[in-house]
Amino acid sequence: MIDHRALHKLTYGMYIIGVAEGGDDNGQVSNTLFQVASEPLLVSVCINKVNRTHGMIQRSGAFTVSVLSTTAPMSLINLFGFHHGFDIEKFKEIPHRSADNGAPMVLSHTLAYIEVSVKSSLDAVSHTLFLGQVTNAGMLQEGEPMTYEHYRTVLKGYTPVTAPTFRPHERPPGIKG
Amino acid sequence: MIDHRALHKLTYGMYIIGVAEGGDDNGQVSNTLFQVASEPLLVSVCINKVNRTHGMIQRSGAFTVSVLSTTAPMSLINLFGFHHGFDIEKFKEIPHRSADNGAPMVLSHTLAYIEVSVKSSLDAVSHTLFLGQVTNAGMLQEGEPMTYEHYRTVLKGYTPVTAPTFRPHERPPGIKG
Repeated sequence: MIDHRALHKLTYGMYIIGVAEGGDDNGQVSNTLFQVASEPLLVSVCINKVNRTHGMIQRSGAFTVSVLSTTAPMSLINLFGFHHGFDIEKFKEIPHRSADNGAPMVLSHTLAYIEVSVKSSLDAVSHTLFLGQVTNAGMLQEGEPMTYEHYRTVLKGYTPVTAPTFRPHERPPGIKG
Repeated sequence: MIDHRALHKLTYGMYIIGVAEGGDDNGQVSNTLFQVASEPLLVSVCINKVNRTHGMIQRSGAFTVSVLSTTAPMSLINLFGFHHGFDIEKFKEIPHRSADNGAPMVLSHTLAYIEVSVKSSLDAVSHTLFLGQVTNAGMLQEGEPMTYEHYRTVLKGYTPVTAPTFRPHERPPGIKG
């Protein structure tokens, strides 16, 4: 028997993954990113195959990580977490700049950025785990990193259908991944 | 340029990965575990190739996750995080039981357990990312999950040389992965 409450005790951060392709910027929220090795410096992120970000990472081979602060408002998370990159230009109204690898990073409510060059990937049915090498990283401001727990308990945030940690029993009406 | 402080803003939990092979129990601390998909329910964990746990997961194809509570003492984390499974029987003095998949789970200072059947893996130079399906999961007690941040700031814990998030600039003397 699987008691899903056990899965809800896992700890995650909150990040915006940025990607660029052919002059288009796009991005999405991810809570599933971690460092995998220190020499070489590798990180892994998990992305749903239906998201526009997925194909853009596959084709461009690069992405950025913007580490969100606890000051990040729900409006920012909603924009990047609950809208499709196929429908809107997510970075249009958001302070951002292009990283050295060409992908956009968020400049507001972001503590730090990490630039990643994809090295390999692992199929996970609905999702792909991308493994990449860190090519650049820097601090933008001091502050507390937003955790998934903070997002859910303080901001009362839901989890999109397309997230790795989606909880089918609490599906709110009308949300998209 | 890579400013390592950016990597230190990533969020992790604290878990003990349990594994069994030929009547031997073993385990290690991991801070790099996350849910990867919800249908099917998949998780991924990152393990250093030099650790005994690594080969035991490869050969047995199964492991458990014990989700540590903030009540877990440094002695428990030291035992599973800073000693080799080749040198000592880590579970000998620790309250535990075998999960349905045969691997041991910690019963003290553990909020929840997850049993995993390995499906595939991805090479990450010094480490391997194991991807597996959750076969069983349950709650042991209520409480706050220990985060890596809690471990480092409240318990003043170091990171072993063999950890995915090892920080070369703060290597304490005599620690082992």
